[in-house]
This record gives sequence, structure tokens and C-alpha cells, in this order.
Amino acid sequence: MQKVAILGIGQTSISEHWDESLREIAGDAALAALHDAGLESVDALYVGNMLSPLISGQNQLGTFISDWVGLWHREAVKVEAACGSGAAAFRAALMAVAAGDIESALVVGIEKMSDKTSHEVTASLATAADADYEVEQGVSFVGLNALVMQRYMHEFGWKHADFAPFSINAHANAMHNPFARLHQRITSDKFEKSAMVATPINLLDASPTGDGAAAAVIVPAHKVALRQNRPRIEVAASASNTDTIAVHSRKDPLFLRAAYESARRCYEMAGIEPKDLDLFEVHDAFTIMTALSLEACGFAERGRGVQLGLNNEITPQGRIPICTRGGLKARGHPVGATGMYQIVEVAQQLRGECGETQVDGARLGMAQNIGGSGATIITHILKAD
Amino acid sequence: MQKVAILGIGQTSISEHWDESLREIAGDAALAALHDAGLESVDALYVGNMLSPLISGQNQLGTFISDWVGLWHREAVKVEAACGSGAAAFRAALMAVAAGDIESALVVGIEKMSDKTSHEVTASLATAADADYEVEQGVSFVGLNALVMQRYMHEFGWKHADFAPFSINAHANAMHNPFARLHQRITSDKFEKSAMVATPINLLDASPTGDGAAAAVIVPAHKVALRQNRPRIEVAASASNTDTIAVHSRKDPLFLRAAYESARRCYEMAGIEPKDLDLFEVHDAFTIMTALSLEACGFAERGRGVQLGLNNEITPQGRIPICTRGGLKARGHPVGATGMYQIVEVAQQLRGECGETQVDGARLGMAQNIGGSGATIITHILKAD
Repeated sequence: MQKVAILGIGQTSISEHWDESLREIAGDAALAALHDAGLESVDALYVGNMLSPLISGQNQLGTFISDWVGLWHREAVKVEAACGSGAAAFRAALMAVAAGDIESALVVGIEKMSDKTSHEVTASLATAADADYEVEQGVSFVGLNALVMQRYMHEFGWKHADFAPFSINAHANAMHNPFARLHQRITSDKFEKSAMVATPINLLDASPTGDGAAAAVIVPAHKVALRQNRPRIEVAASASNTDTIAVHSRKDPLFLRAAYESARRCYEMAGIEPKDLDLFEVHDAFTIMTALSLEACGFAERGRGVQLGLNNEITPQGRIPICTRGGLKARGHPVGATGMYQIVEVAQQLRGECGETQVDGARLGMAQNIGGSGATIITHILKAD
Repeated sequence: MQKVAILGIGQTSISEHWDESLREIAGDAALAALHDAGLESVDALYVGNMLSPLISGQNQLGTFISDWVGLWHREAVKVEAACGSGAAAFRAALMAVAAGDIESALVVGIEKMSDKTSHEVTASLATAADADYEVEQGVSFVGLNALVMQRYMHEFGWKHADFAPFSINAHANAMHNPFARLHQRITSDKFEKSAMVATPINLLDASPTGDGAAAAVIVPAHKVALRQNRPRIEVAASASNTDTIAVHSRKDPLFLRAAYESARRCYEMAGIEPKDLDLFEVHDAFTIMTALSLEACGFAERGRGVQLGLNNEITPQGRIPICTRGGLKARGHPVGATGMYQIVEVAQQLRGECGETQVDGARLGMAQNIGGSGATIITHILKAD
């Protein structure tokens, strides 16, 4: 298994792109990544997407996008793992390059969500849960997360306000990210007073959806040193793990076992411990997920993840910076694209391109992308050489 | 890139499985393949599926199925390339095993189509075409293929009746396949008189959809010889290639360039020529696709594919046996599962388990799975050691 490196990255802003179609948004990110890599072409295109069949009536998104960007007569394919689709596509491309079957791949995470009403989008997002045993009972995706958060607060004695630092940090960091969906600082007071969505999750616990695409070009690592004068970004580790699809099937719904397993495998592969990481792009779809992820990945004891926020340890200057570009909460969560935004953002940090939210001397960064309520979790560690 | 072998196979019958859900059908094939492999578990599950978001309201099918069959706390993911999803999932799993990242994988192709009306299924299948520039004009998937067939007949001077041998062979072979959707012999006369679907494609040019799943377990080849006393089935070659998504964008819509490119790459990898193949499981969604595939893969000159049927060269005793278990035409076409049925059937031939339609001394077989109207084409060559 040969080492693989990221040669180029690209992304679009996350917004309601009413004037751009699915293929145009994906194309913008794809061409930006190719340009950044200094390549005109690659051997294969891997696309991560969740909702295009439901929202755009379009399947076969790999070939749909390869055709649009002029990458004809080569491999193209789509990978789907609900909101974990972006990182799942990255991992599939990684395997093909690592195996030596292809010499280069472009990975694009793309979601176009604003073409349907929010009612339709809510129903589409529920396809990440178990259609027979969860959705059939009328539960929405935010509803499932609300049940988990309620239980967590009850079990470990936290108040809703204790989750505020996660969202405050994300919004503060997004102020400096031109691609972010939201550019507005928030306070604890505003956090507590925002509209309830599904008790105890309110609007400022939840990440906004949107249209957007992020992309990266990967090649065998030995091909990079010769071509670029910026740090070489190696993929030091990749792992994917799963839990039951339905939350109610888990013995302990407050333990993200798939996060634990995939992170542990990544630490082993990279030969590091959690404390060695300079930053962690966490899947903060809801504040409760941030707490659970920090715990499962070894940054806090069970039930103590919230404390990291309260202790100010998650800011770019903290012990374990998270959501350094705004996270899902403020950069935005175009579901099937999110995993690629995370990987692109870690790469930006390792290149030292993050300005006001740059983590000093960042050399090792982790990105973790989640499909469903902890059902599919894909973790990557990137390393600057 | 280490060599990979197929250790076990499984499949369900293709039918309208009203009494079984999506997860149950997939589970049946998955557990059959594990049982056949003599394994209780594998490192990862790869699922090929096209329509579950649209027909069953279910995304994240990898984890959905891994949960159902008890493969908890390991990797699971779905791969989609329209009707090419089955082989695309197989190829993604192959890359991960070939890279050495995982030691074993279970690949399941699954489609559950009978839960919606045929009108809804027709609309769902159209998501394989270009939503903006084909479907928006009102063209259906069979309509696109009809345009291609009309042009072929005009260009090369064939009559509709000349395509009959493809369907007659498929139906004859399916008589001996207990998993096949259709068990009825047809004649030239019946072929010519069957109901028109989209001129010139009639009912007996077209493959029937259905519910079904097929699965295979793959492992590094060096692990197989020690475990089994049947022939070792190696994956000798794998390649995926694409064309424009819309048929009208192609300079020559009668040349399946992605079939040509992926087959050529496979011949190179396996170190063989077309004439060395003992059988070819072709993607005969419509008779016209059979003719075009045979030509693109090197078995006939341009415009002469139909002649192979007329010359009786495609039967199990012929020069290049195709559809030996009934093909899409008579075994059935549960779209996202079809690619895995083809791979399972080639493996059955190489094991010598095909009874009345066994190809004598079969050692090398090719399976070719197509997404869209020639847009994504994935080719595999299997070899018995």
C-alpha cells in the first residue's frame, strides 16, 4: 500500500446557489482543485453525494460530473454514506491510488439542497436513518439527535447553556472563512435564546444546510516532493467504521463507538496519540455530536466533552482546536460535501493558509465525517511533511 | 497491488419479492456468500445499489445492511453508478483488498423495485440519464436506447428480426437457472410479435426489472489455495471507464467507447485477447446493447455484432457464449444488483457448476456492467486457477 498525498484542493462558498446547478457547483470545486494541483487531468473522479437522486432527479453522479468538467473516457463513480459521503468517496479514491491501480484521482463532495422546500429536505435527510424502524415512527433526523442530547444532559448533569462554547467557537472562526455559510458572531445569551427546533436542540445547536462542493486531488506521495514548494500533505491514516443504523439498537447511545474504532485505527496507522494532533475537524452537525466525538476520539472522558468548550480548549489557540474554519455549524453542512470540506480545511491548516484562525505550527490534523446518527464514521489524519 | 480472489458467492432469485424487504433480500444473498466462503465475518461490506433512496426512502445502504446481517463495528459503504452500481461496488472493494487496507470484503448488489408502480420505477430509472438535457425533454431510458437501435438498423442495414437470437439464447439459458426471473422459451416468431415498447424496441428486446441481490466475498488470492478444494477464482483484471452522460453528446452514439476502453485495459492486465475468453456476461439490457458491446469488446467488427447471434456463436457451445445464465433479458435486471449477478455467474461457470448451460472447460470469463446508456462501464475478468 503506497503512501498518498494531497496535491491540490478547491472549494466553493456554501450558500443558496440559486443561479448555479448541481453540475456547475461541483465543477467549480473540481476545476479549482485541478488548478491548485497544477494538473489538467487525472485518472479518475470519485464523487461523494447523498441527495442528488431525491433533490435533483440525478443518479450516476460520477459520470455526470466527469462529463461536465471534461474528464472524459476515464473512471468515475459515486460513493454514498449519508452525511459521511464526502469522506467515504475520499477513502475509496485513496484505496485505488494506494493500490497502484490509478495514478491520480480527483475527489469531489457535492450537495445541492436549495432546489427543494425545507419540508422536502427534512424528509430527504431522514433517509439517513432507518426507514422501517425510525422514520416510519415519524422521527426526523434532528429529532433523533435531540433524544440523544436529552439523555446526555440527564446522564451527565449538563445544562443546555454548557454547549454554547462549541457554537460560539464555530461562529467566531467562520468570520475569517470566506467560503462559510454564516458570518455572524454569537454570544451565550443569543445561543440560549434562539428558537427551539427539537427539545433540547435549538437553532444555534444545529448546523445549517446549503449548496456547496469541495474537492481534492490525490496522487502517490513520491510524486509530490518534486513538483511543489509548499509542504507535502500526506494522508497518514484512513479508517471507516460503523454502528447499528438505528440509534435505539445501541446498548449505549451516548458512546460513538464507530468514532472510537475509526480514530483508534487511525492513531495506530499514523503512530500517534490524540495529544499529538494539532487540530480536529469534528462533525458538529449538532453540539451534542461535538461532545460525543471529542470523548470517543480520546480528548475527554465519557460525559466530559462539554468541559473542553467551557475550558476554552477548542479555539485555534487551545489544546485541541476544532471547527477552525467554522465547522458544520457556521461554515455550513451541505451534507454529502461536508467530509470533503473537512479534508480541504485540514489541508489548508497544514499549509498555513488560515490567517486569523491558523493553528500555529500545525503539522498533524484529523478530519472525521459522520453518516447518520453515528452509524457510519470515516476518519482521516493528514500530515505535513 | 496484491492479487485478489473470490472465496464465496451467493444470490437470491429475481422476482417480485412482495414478502421480503430491501434488507431481507440483501441479507439473504450476503449470508449465502459468507456461508459459501466458510466465513462468519469479513472486514468490510460494500453495497451496490441505485434506487433505494427513491423507492425505499433509504440511504446509507452500506451500514443499513451491515447492521442487518450482524457485521457490526467495521467498514460499510454504498457505491452507485446507476445500473453499473453492482460492478462499481465490486471494484471499490477490490481496490481496498488489493491495497492491503482490509483483508476481506463482502460485496452485495441489491435492488428492490416492486414496491413502487411501474410508472414510478420508469421515472426512477430515468435518473441514470441526464436530468437537465435528456429527461427534461421527456425521454425515458428505453426511449434513449430505442433511438440508438433505430440508428444502428438504419446505418448497418439490419432488420428487427435479426436481433432475435440474442433474446432466444438468453431465454433458453435461463430455463436452467433456478434464480432467473423468466422461465419460458421464446421463438423468432414470438420475438417479432411481442408488444412494442418504444420503436423499434419491443418487449422481447428489453430486460425485465425485479427484486434481487447477489453477493461475493473477496480476499487476497494467497489466502485461498490453502482453504478450498475447488478452483481458485482470481480477479485477473478490473477497469472502469466513462463516456458522456447524454447520448446526444457523443460523436458516434453507435460506438460504446467506455466498453472498448475498459475491456482493452482488462485484456492488457490479464495478458489476453478477446479470443481467449471462454464466456462473456454482457449487459444485455436491450438487444441493441448486446450488439454494441460485442463490437466494442472485440468480438465483431463495427455493425456486425448482430451476425454473431445469427451465426449461433453466442450459445454455451458457441465461439463466445453470452448470457449463459439468462443475462439481463431472462435472468432479470434488478438494476443495482445486476453487476454482482454477472460476477457471481462467471464464478459459477469457472467452478463448473452450470449444468446444462455449462461452458466446457471454462477458465476465463468476462463480466461487463453498464450504467446509463453506455455512460459508465465496468469490466472484470475472472480466471480459474
